[in-house]
Amino acid sequence: MAKIKAGIVGGTGYTGVELLRILANHPEVDLQVITSRSEAGLPVSDLYPNLRGFMDIQFTEPDVKALKNCDLVFFATPNGVAMKMVPELIEAGVKVIDLAADFRIKDISVWEHWYGMTHACPDYVAQAVYGLPEVNREAIKQARLIANPGCYPTAVQLGFLPLLENRLINTDFLVADCKSGVSGAGRGANVGTLLCEASESFKAYAVPGHRHLPEIKQGLELEHKSAVDLTFVPHLTPMIRGIEATLYAKAKTNTVSVEEIQKLFEQRYQDEPFVDVLPAGSHPETRTVKGSNLCRIAVHQPQDNDTIVVLSVIDNLVKGAAGQAVQNMNLAFDLDEQAGLGIVPLMP
Amino acid sequence: MAKIKAGIVGGTGYTGVELLRILANHPEVDLQVITSRSEAGLPVSDLYPNLRGFMDIQFTEPDVKALKNCDLVFFATPNGVAMKMVPELIEAGVKVIDLAADFRIKDISVWEHWYGMTHACPDYVAQAVYGLPEVNREAIKQARLIANPGCYPTAVQLGFLPLLENRLINTDFLVADCKSGVSGAGRGANVGTLLCEASESFKAYAVPGHRHLPEIKQGLELEHKSAVDLTFVPHLTPMIRGIEATLYAKAKTNTVSVEEIQKLFEQRYQDEPFVDVLPAGSHPETRTVKGSNLCRIAVHQPQDNDTIVVLSVIDNLVKGAAGQAVQNMNLAFDLDEQAGLGIVPLMP
Amino acid sequence: MAKIKAGIVGGTGYTGVELLRILANHPEVDLQVITSRSEAGLPVSDLYPNLRGFMDIQFTEPDVKALKNCDLVFFATPNGVAMKMVPELIEAGVKVIDLAADFRIKDISVWEHWYGMTHACPDYVAQAVYGLPEVNREAIKQARLIANPGCYPTAVQLGFLPLLENRLINTDFLVADCKSGVSGAGRGANVGTLLCEASESFKAYAVPGHRHLPEIKQGLELEHKSAVDLTFVPHLTPMIRGIEATLYAKAKTNTVSVEEIQKLFEQRYQDEPFVDVLPAGSHPETRTVKGSNLCRIAVHQPQDNDTIVVLSVIDNLVKGAAGQAVQNMNLAFDLDEQAGLGIVPLMP
Amino acid sequence: MAKIKAGIVGGTGYTGVELLRILANHPEVDLQVITSRSEAGLPVSDLYPNLRGFMDIQFTEPDVKALKNCDLVFFATPNGVAMKMVPELIEAGVKVIDLAADFRIKDISVWEHWYGMTHACPDYVAQAVYGLPEVNREAIKQARLIANPGCYPTAVQLGFLPLLENRLINTDFLVADCKSGVSGAGRGANVGTLLCEASESFKAYAVPGHRHLPEIKQGLELEHKSAVDLTFVPHLTPMIRGIEATLYAKAKTNTVSVEEIQKLFEQRYQDEPFVDVLPAGSHPETRTVKGSNLCRIAVHQPQDNDTIVVLSVIDNLVKGAAGQAVQNMNLAFDLDEQAGLGIVPLMP
Repeated sequence: MAKIKAGIVGGTGYTGVELLRILANHPEVDLQVITSRSEAGLPVSDLYPNLRGFMDIQFTEPDVKALKNCDLVFFATPNGVAMKMVPELIEAGVKVIDLAADFRIKDISVWEHWYGMTHACPDYVAQAVYGLPEVNREAIKQARLIANPGCYPTAVQLGFLPLLENRLINTDFLVADCKSGVSGAGRGANVGTLLCEASESFKAYAVPGHRHLPEIKQGLELEHKSAVDLTFVPHLTPMIRGIEATLYAKAKTNTVSVEEIQKLFEQRYQDEPFVDVLPAGSHPETRTVKGSNLCRIAVHQPQDNDTIVVLSVIDNLVKGAAGQAVQNMNLAFDLDEQAGLGIVPLMP
Repeated sequence: MAKIKAGIVGGTGYTGVELLRILANHPEVDLQVITSRSEAGLPVSDLYPNLRGFMDIQFTEPDVKALKNCDLVFFATPNGVAMKMVPELIEAGVKVIDLAADFRIKDISVWEHWYGMTHACPDYVAQAVYGLPEVNREAIKQARLIANPGCYPTAVQLGFLPLLENRLINTDFLVADCKSGVSGAGRGANVGTLLCEASESFKAYAVPGHRHLPEIKQGLELEHKSAVDLTFVPHLTPMIRGIEATLYAKAKTNTVSVEEIQKLFEQRYQDEPFVDVLPAGSHPETRTVKGSNLCRIAVHQPQDNDTIVVLSVIDNLVKGAAGQAVQNMNLAFDLDEQAGLGIVPLMP
Repeated sequence: MAKIKAGIVGGTGYTGVELLRILANHPEVDLQVITSRSEAGLPVSDLYPNLRGFMDIQFTEPDVKALKNCDLVFFATPNGVAMKMVPELIEAGVKVIDLAADFRIKDISVWEHWYGMTHACPDYVAQAVYGLPEVNREAIKQARLIANPGCYPTAVQLGFLPLLENRLINTDFLVADCKSGVSGAGRGANVGTLLCEASESFKAYAVPGHRHLPEIKQGLELEHKSAVDLTFVPHLTPMIRGIEATLYAKAKTNTVSVEEIQKLFEQRYQDEPFVDVLPAGSHPETRTVKGSNLCRIAVHQPQDNDTIVVLSVIDNLVKGAAGQAVQNMNLAFDLDEQAGLGIVPLMP
Repeated sequence: MAKIKAGIVGGTGYTGVELLRILANHPEVDLQVITSRSEAGLPVSDLYPNLRGFMDIQFTEPDVKALKNCDLVFFATPNGVAMKMVPELIEAGVKVIDLAADFRIKDISVWEHWYGMTHACPDYVAQAVYGLPEVNREAIKQARLIANPGCYPTAVQLGFLPLLENRLINTDFLVADCKSGVSGAGRGANVGTLLCEASESFKAYAVPGHRHLPEIKQGLELEHKSAVDLTFVPHLTPMIRGIEATLYAKAKTNTVSVEEIQKLFEQRYQDEPFVDVLPAGSHPETRTVKGSNLCRIAVHQPQDNDTIVVLSVIDNLVKGAAGQAVQNMNLAFDLDEQAGLGIVPLMP
């Protein structure tokens, strides 16, 4: 079979370089074009010297014609860019995976409120498939347009999923206390993410409201089939990669023991190649998934009371972005779901 | 007035060096003895080269007679050491501040359960004053024996205090999601706190139960005057110093707005020299208190619903240990409460 | 005696906040004005929240009249700013300490070559005193205009000084391999100093030529009273603060033993309040000077051959910038040289 | 062809886990046994949770019989262990790659001096091949016993090699100023490598003499075919992985320009799959080789004088240990030299 002809729009940010790192070793992909207005003409390995010797391509000016010749186009662009180009590509028969947020939220008015712009192609939002394979695998296989989930939403949804599907918890007070490495803030030149500002310190941010909140709520409510009251607090953590989500919920009275919850998580994810339910009593560390597409999860019921605590870790740039995009590509093109994603986490 | 003759038992750990750093510039203290069985004979500046030129003293063998000549003895020892020496010192008229946990928990059986040993002097627990000045200032001034609070308990209690005192929240589901720098784990040679294990990673630990849980609960229940249901999850954060506590509670229906809560925090702490309530909408960073005895706090009511989020940061080695001990000493000896504690946080 | 009325021009960078941190506790200084075009109107504690509660002043528009009312003005500005304002201030009788490079290099053409601009007041360069107290103490006491040394030049000159003064080494091949924390690159929003770019990595930079090279050479040649051939390679180190200089030189044949060199260093610096010669065999760590004005030095003669290795560490923001500026101020105003500089290094 | 039956002795340290990470994806290796006295019975993925799902094997008691059934045994043990077992394995026809230092130094008395023990099998030192493929590729292909080079020696030798082979530099004053991430110190529980001791600080260590000095000298002298006078100073750098070597040498008068040196390096390494000579003027960063077997090198002649500066970076755990061991295995078993080593560096 011929390789998939792939293109990338954007690609100068951390999501982009991570996509390149994974595709460099993907056996079934032929990267044909990567566009960047600002870096046109530059070899990607000049911008990302880790790729020297692994990736020969250079950035080119955005060119819809070249992208239309691809089987698949990834958008690794800021929010609001993909929606302007997607209709033309889709109509030309190109599949699209958007790593930004343009197609994640079904309610257009909610999206426009949180992202502060008018959506350019609401019709495409309706047909877009939310690319969380553990929930939407069959739809992803048929999708033309895939909305790749956000990093926090991936970690939180996978952690709450078995509890909500089984209606084991009260949904009037869910807490998602999430911690992200600084790469989640992107490669932009901002004072707040300088080493001297962000290392040796820890802080919550965006407590009044973060754009991933409506995305998470949408996902949890779909899982639970009713409204949930979620408090989501993200934190900036002095490290490059990794998200840890500590999730809190009250069990409905007299429902299940922690052993039963453990078993339920194990069953829910037993066939999932990228979700690893740890043995009872575990505390997952973000470094155990560094560079890989895995989500590792542990469940606790501390002090044997009715509070359930779920711990969920991912690499925000992999399962939280580029790796999940490749997983979605594998599904959409009927490849081995794990192709190119067998990378062993780098530890220490 | 003559200076306070002070002694330190232990002092080879991070709490010890921090105590020395603060006492080195304290105008009213004359450090006469610091004991360490393992390091006897060694100048403290050999173990802690930051102190070269600031502190001439050397470690000596534990010697009750020398300690009895002091006005005050700090215990910067592992749990279970102070309780064996305290009665003799107290009877000799020496004041004692224990930076470990021996005298923090009033319920002896609870203490013995969590600390895994029999308490050597339960009578002294009863007379010990819990050294959180924002709650117990007057008692501290009269105390002979002060139980210096734990690091997490300090950050969590100061954050919940105004809410509990005013009975504004439901106490059947409180969450304290806490993050600590690695210095909280001490200076022991353990694999888990090696740079290669603890940097570039984030994890929860001790979810089934941490020793600071009963201490925090005791404090919150005293403040609230009834039982509280608290879930406390500590996390190891890849930095040296700092604790951030993100606290979640449901407001009782139709009680107060976030503006009122803000005002209430400001009023509660307006005369506190070491608690700084930040302007509405703030997100305190641990680095803004690094090296200082401050606790900085912000309050939020995200998405205008009934969940209250309190953010509280301290330096775990200062307000969470040695600085608070010096604050307690200042109170107990009728000095300016801020003496020796005017250190400006080091940033960046 | 009345306090010194001080002003700061600039002050939004790391050198500025460090100057504020030190001055906040200086007993003899009254900070009257701090100017910043970009931040005029902002309280300094909004930009630097570590200063909340310690420093009430706010940034104001640059205003020569206000500055002329000061006894002393610090320039914590980018290179090329001070030279435009200094003549007017000096003529008005104000003393000036420039923390940038405008007055460090006596040879105007060399300065103009390395800094890429025309010097605005060459005459003032001639009268400026290079503010390295260990070399120029008496001149500093009389100076009206003090050129505060660069961070690398401070560490390197103090390390080579006793060897050169005593003409113990061949000067045809000196190596200064220097490592700096990222704060040396300033608070500007640059991609290269983002946490995700600069942490967990190490690199040399500016090998073809760094602006501190001519400054160091000028200093070494003054000490040695003849030309020296120096290779200076700076490196970016994944930490916030600290400079370590590893210096290499060949001893002239059959000159001195390492014991004699050790003694020579100890004698040279025995009366220096901020230079600490460590015991023979030591390896100074940058963290032992963090936040303090100290330079700690060790000397080695590895494998008993004729190569001498000197290790020199400073905090680049203190002895390498703001602390040295305050030391110079103390000298220029006939205060205790250590006033305000008794800060104990923060460790861990 | 049947896969290589491989065994590992030791394997609980960082070199061990790195070997497992690489072998997990090696297409031609079947890991049959990994021994550890202390961890016998434990699945490797319990000790190294990054390996969960990638590696099913568990540690077993050392068992020579099981090892003799292997085609190849790696020793990832402390110094002095391999020499006791190697003769029996070699005689049984097993090939051995020792990642420790037992067979690196040909002069037994030098080895015994630096390693402080009597060598158990000097005869085998003579037949051992020093496993630096860029120097000894053909001998490695034929070797039964391979001494895998140290981390610093790899970075330094590859950097000096083209200069020495071409006799372009004076060898009476070579300097190798080397910086290593903390993983180079191993996974032992030592205070000095705790996060709180080793992060946010930088220091030289072992200036009087480091065990890698005689190994490097031996290598350089073989390359140069005469004695060299090398000063080697290692430094501890606050990061997990990576070595940077900054090398200084004086060019012989009127020999070559920097352009010629650049070309010479490019020619020397043009067929080397794991040595990347960067374009003129580059400054290699350790992060550009993180997790990969690459050595990236740049050459400079600063200020156009006669000093040559070479910058060389490797991942100390890969090209400096486990990756080079796998490269040697590939050569010794006539596999594709790059098999299993196509890992793209992880950046950011």
